[in-house]
Amino acid sequence: MPDPRFFRRSGPFPLAEVARRAGAEIGSGADASLLVSDVASLAAAGPRDLSYVSDPAWLPALATSKCGVCLVKRGMAASAPAGGVLLFVDNPRLAFALVAAMFYPDTSPGASTVPFKVADSARIHPSAVIGPGVEIGENVSIGANCTLTHCVIGARCTIHPGVQIGQDGFGFVPGPTGLMKMPQLGRVIIGTDVEIGANCCIDRGALEDTEIGDGTKFDNLVQVGHNARIGRHCVFVAQSGVAGSCTIGDGVLVGGQVAISDHVTVGAGAQIAGQSGVVRDVAPKEVVMGTPARPIRQFWREIAALSRLTKRGKSP
Amino acid sequence: MPDPRFFRRSGPFPLAEVARRAGAEIGSGADASLLVSDVASLAAAGPRDLSYVSDPAWLPALATSKCGVCLVKRGMAASAPAGGVLLFVDNPRLAFALVAAMFYPDTSPGASTVPFKVADSARIHPSAVIGPGVEIGENVSIGANCTLTHCVIGARCTIHPGVQIGQDGFGFVPGPTGLMKMPQLGRVIIGTDVEIGANCCIDRGALEDTEIGDGTKFDNLVQVGHNARIGRHCVFVAQSGVAGSCTIGDGVLVGGQVAISDHVTVGAGAQIAGQSGVVRDVAPKEVVMGTPARPIRQFWREIAALSRLTKRGKSP
Amino acid sequence: MPDPRFFRRSGPFPLAEVARRAGAEIGSGADASLLVSDVASLAAAGPRDLSYVSDPAWLPALATSKCGVCLVKRGMAASAPAGGVLLFVDNPRLAFALVAAMFYPDTSPGASTVPFKVADSARIHPSAVIGPGVEIGENVSIGANCTLTHCVIGARCTIHPGVQIGQDGFGFVPGPTGLMKMPQLGRVIIGTDVEIGANCCIDRGALEDTEIGDGTKFDNLVQVGHNARIGRHCVFVAQSGVAGSCTIGDGVLVGGQVAISDHVTVGAGAQIAGQSGVVRDVAPKEVVMGTPARPIRQFWREIAALSRLTKRGKSP
Repeated sequence: MPDPRFFRRSGPFPLAEVARRAGAEIGSGADASLLVSDVASLAAAGPRDLSYVSDPAWLPALATSKCGVCLVKRGMAASAPAGGVLLFVDNPRLAFALVAAMFYPDTSPGASTVPFKVADSARIHPSAVIGPGVEIGENVSIGANCTLTHCVIGARCTIHPGVQIGQDGFGFVPGPTGLMKMPQLGRVIIGTDVEIGANCCIDRGALEDTEIGDGTKFDNLVQVGHNARIGRHCVFVAQSGVAGSCTIGDGVLVGGQVAISDHVTVGAGAQIAGQSGVVRDVAPKEVVMGTPARPIRQFWREIAALSRLTKRGKSP
Repeated sequence: MPDPRFFRRSGPFPLAEVARRAGAEIGSGADASLLVSDVASLAAAGPRDLSYVSDPAWLPALATSKCGVCLVKRGMAASAPAGGVLLFVDNPRLAFALVAAMFYPDTSPGASTVPFKVADSARIHPSAVIGPGVEIGENVSIGANCTLTHCVIGARCTIHPGVQIGQDGFGFVPGPTGLMKMPQLGRVIIGTDVEIGANCCIDRGALEDTEIGDGTKFDNLVQVGHNARIGRHCVFVAQSGVAGSCTIGDGVLVGGQVAISDHVTVGAGAQIAGQSGVVRDVAPKEVVMGTPARPIRQFWREIAALSRLTKRGKSP
Repeated sequence: MPDPRFFRRSGPFPLAEVARRAGAEIGSGADASLLVSDVASLAAAGPRDLSYVSDPAWLPALATSKCGVCLVKRGMAASAPAGGVLLFVDNPRLAFALVAAMFYPDTSPGASTVPFKVADSARIHPSAVIGPGVEIGENVSIGANCTLTHCVIGARCTIHPGVQIGQDGFGFVPGPTGLMKMPQLGRVIIGTDVEIGANCCIDRGALEDTEIGDGTKFDNLVQVGHNARIGRHCVFVAQSGVAGSCTIGDGVLVGGQVAISDHVTVGAGAQIAGQSGVVRDVAPKEVVMGTPARPIRQFWREIAALSRLTKRGKSP
């Protein structure tokens, strides 16, 4: 559930009110006076929390979830597991966004009044802005003109100037009047000995956290999307980008201007050559290049073949 | 003409003085004591304004322009339409830059003393810098460490931390001593319900405005060049870039690290896959990928063909 | 040697202590009571300075260097030139990082107390942060929310908002407990009439300087790595990146989102089309495109051949 250091929750709300906000039909046999306490992911939700299933592939996760109330698509009644209350809607993700905004009407840093905690040995340079609830460990350096909200920074990290950490992830749901914002209720958790180059951006998670492992180093202007989980001792060269919900193993090397698509997994020790576009999972220790990224030897063979083709094909 | 909230104009100047600054020969029959008031685009210029034609293709626009004085290339006398005064120069763009700098010797935010206007309901986070003349609408949030100059921000926009809006567009003219700056005299006009991710940069227009339509959402580290006109309800994923004078229709989806070249038009509802390089116009609803961007099915067919080629070509 | 305006040196240290910190075996015949004063590159080192050779290809440079003490790989005794003291280690680069950190335990801007010097005619916009020792020339404009450390800015430069100049270059050495930082002891030297777009990042050098020549113009969000030497009157379009130790000649045009790999040389007057990935040297006036960058006509011939290939290969 969202961390109360960063987010101020409204509610609880009666099930009937939640259903009304979601535009939902309450599943048969539910107690409409039930109080709903919070929103959460299926994995984290408890018996008084609301979650959602937007894809039939998530139904097994619902079956093992402790979630008390779940938004599901109309017509899923038969396939949904027994247990908690079901709320039937046309668009579970949109409905969840609406309910999440009811529990968390203001997710800006200003919504929390918990003071930040900065270790005595940390150095905060001029014009850096630290939001409520933020924790900064021993011997950390926060550069000038950085903004840190909704995050926890481990010991001995160096955050270079102009870095933005903890702002909203890029999550929107098409709704009747345009794109509706999915409230971003997670955090950014940064390990120890991490270095983050100038003007990098690291978004906080949507429901889970964005995580960066110990010893990982980012060059300048790197982008990390919400819910990304980045391992330990990785290296990201300048202007590379990791989209939302990626999983990057330990010791991965990412070249400059690489793009990694959302939900991709990159195995430990993999290497991704500069400017590659990674659109599928990369195996541990695999070395890839190109858009779409493919084994690097294959990439160079193709470049050579393409070059030969024009020579062969040339008119005399 | 340049918005007086943002730009302080010198002058008016006599035609003879303008011609001297431009290194121009005054067309026959012109009244050298005529006072020139301002510089403007052909479309916006009035009878006391100066504009320029740097390409014969602009001559029809000159014919319908109300522009009083126009810089044209020597030798264009015959083809130029009758009407206003012509000033003949070797390099009309360079001459225009010189004259524009005479009218607007200082285009920095400090040149204006018009106070900014911020709606009571707007939230300005710490260390954000708002320049003279800027207007910020109801319920807008301006993140920490943003800089906003020469711009108007519509209601309910969210500007994330570290965003730079309204600085000079990237316009230079090769001159005798290197690259001379073309004074950037336009604005940035942002509609309602726009979201702009952390560390994005949106340059102001050169003579026209840079415009962003209602409901459009930018992820982090996106670049928008001067005079770009972006429609409503578009989505720009992180690290994408739109060069100067592009026209992007409503509802366009732009993937991460896409580059759109200058003066390109992308039709409504088009989709551009991540890392594509768009160098020609894209039709409405077209889906493109690759550099140069081409229809996405064609792109994937080519990738498959290239892969087969290396297999076929392999020595045994 | 590191500029004392920006870096505060410890020491001198006796050779024995230096050797102990480096984990080095002292070459035969050396005077262990010798005092070592500083660390430096082979080219700049004097008789009391320590340098290193991490590649046999550097041995000729060692032969002509005035360097008093040099870290070399065990086993190099035979091939090393006579002259200064040799310190034998397993990993000269790692050992150099350890010794450099002994001489410069704190390379943050806060380590210097030399006041910055700003010309009277320069304009520093709000929330810009200027570090100790920085020099800013006549008629320079420093945008809001910029951070400038370890740098010298020539006359008439325009630095747009959100620019970060002089932070650590991205230099790490794999060590026993992860990536160890190579102290970044150089500067950023920017000529006259340079323009740097919003949110650009220019890292300072490692031992040498990062240099940008007179009249060069950067669009927004450009990255320049440590030790890069960029010529005069170059143009870098938005979101391009120059990796460490590149040499870019005068008058080079670099398109948007171009990546130039480290240690590459680009000759004067060369042109690099947008999104290209430059992985080898580019000749003067050469025009290249693609990843890997190749002559632009060759690139377009290959694109055409690839397109024909799919048409030919299509099943009916």
